[in-house]
Amino acid sequence: MNQQYSSVLLEKAVNEFSKLPGIGPKTAMRLVLHLLRQETADVEAFGQAVITLKHEIKYCRVCHNISDEDVCRICSNPRRDAVTVCVVESIQDVMAIENTQQFHGLYHVLGGVISPMDGVGPSDLQIQSLVERVAAGGVEEVILALSPTMEGDTTNFYIFRKLADMPVKITVIARGVAQNDELQYADEVTLGRSIANRIPFNGQM
Amino acid sequence: MNQQYSSVLLEKAVNEFSKLPGIGPKTAMRLVLHLLRQETADVEAFGQAVITLKHEIKYCRVCHNISDEDVCRICSNPRRDAVTVCVVESIQDVMAIENTQQFHGLYHVLGGVISPMDGVGPSDLQIQSLVERVAAGGVEEVILALSPTMEGDTTNFYIFRKLADMPVKITVIARGVAQNDELQYADEVTLGRSIANRIPFNGQM
Repeated sequence: MNQQYSSVLLEKAVNEFSKLPGIGPKTAMRLVLHLLRQETADVEAFGQAVITLKHEIKYCRVCHNISDEDVCRICSNPRRDAVTVCVVESIQDVMAIENTQQFHGLYHVLGGVISPMDGVGPSDLQIQSLVERVAAGGVEEVILALSPTMEGDTTNFYIFRKLADMPVKITVIARGVAQNDELQYADEVTLGRSIANRIPFNGQM
Repeated sequence: MNQQYSSVLLEKAVNEFSKLPGIGPKTAMRLVLHLLRQETADVEAFGQAVITLKHEIKYCRVCHNISDEDVCRICSNPRRDAVTVCVVESIQDVMAIENTQQFHGLYHVLGGVISPMDGVGPSDLQIQSLVERVAAGGVEEVILALSPTMEGDTTNFYIFRKLADMPVKITVIARGVAQNDELQYADEVTLGRSIANRIPFNGQM
């Protein structure tokens, strides 16, 4: 046992929290002592929620989003526009786009982007299943909504070539100055692109 | 279910993490997805460590520190100097002092300081048990090691009066400029006190 801990159980719990990303030993200690002050039922709810999630979670077999069922509630929703598929990197990106309430199609979660530096190749991602999904028919537009980084661009291009011969429209989300950004502080690539890709203005944004 | 979550199980786990102090929903999501990527055994170890801690933790009946036994390993260690008792606010303070390796006596964990603003009075703290511990004999020195705040000072004074008639030496930890602090940036109370409480210098710190 580490000299400073007065309890092996406490040390174990603090060590478990310390394994989480961005949680150092002091924060871990604070979180554990906070939990210790809660009711037993609340602490059990906390521990069990994590264990149950790990045991029972599924990944949608259509879009690979996290799901409670074999097919997630977005893919199985008849009111969604099933001919439009938005390709994203992660589950968080699905949530971010859902939050905008601007998209009513379906998703395809790649699980990352191609990154040779991190040893992530096309076969580590859900790209083949995207190709099969499009080849199966019924998809009219694939929207590439990956991060505007070199890795994102590489992945966009890879998917573009894989789908190039298929009768599907391929689009990419707009890049430009962000809402409420001050123009003078926008980086030159972004600003240049937002000028090159200017769109007709009808009097309202 | 919140619109943005594709899984009730995921939402539950994220909600549980969001209840922790300083953890917002985005951080909670990141932590939960991190856990989901770990092995099942590791996730179970995480959840169980917290639940087991809550079920089996004890508080030392002598010093009220967190413990696996009825009496903690510090109080039951025969090599500790049992005549010196250091009064601290919290378990973290015990750990901080243990880390210095400068103290070999025992502790008394109050569980807070007197703070009328927060509704914490003497009876909410382990002060009576400190008085009884000293009254039982065997304690030669009580070191008050509370935070140098108004609440800490109030608590120091309250304990001082409670113990005033007993044959025990009462000391308080030194306040002054911190190691490696730049003198010009020290606050005036601290600096003034460190001059008033200057000690003989024997050529080495």
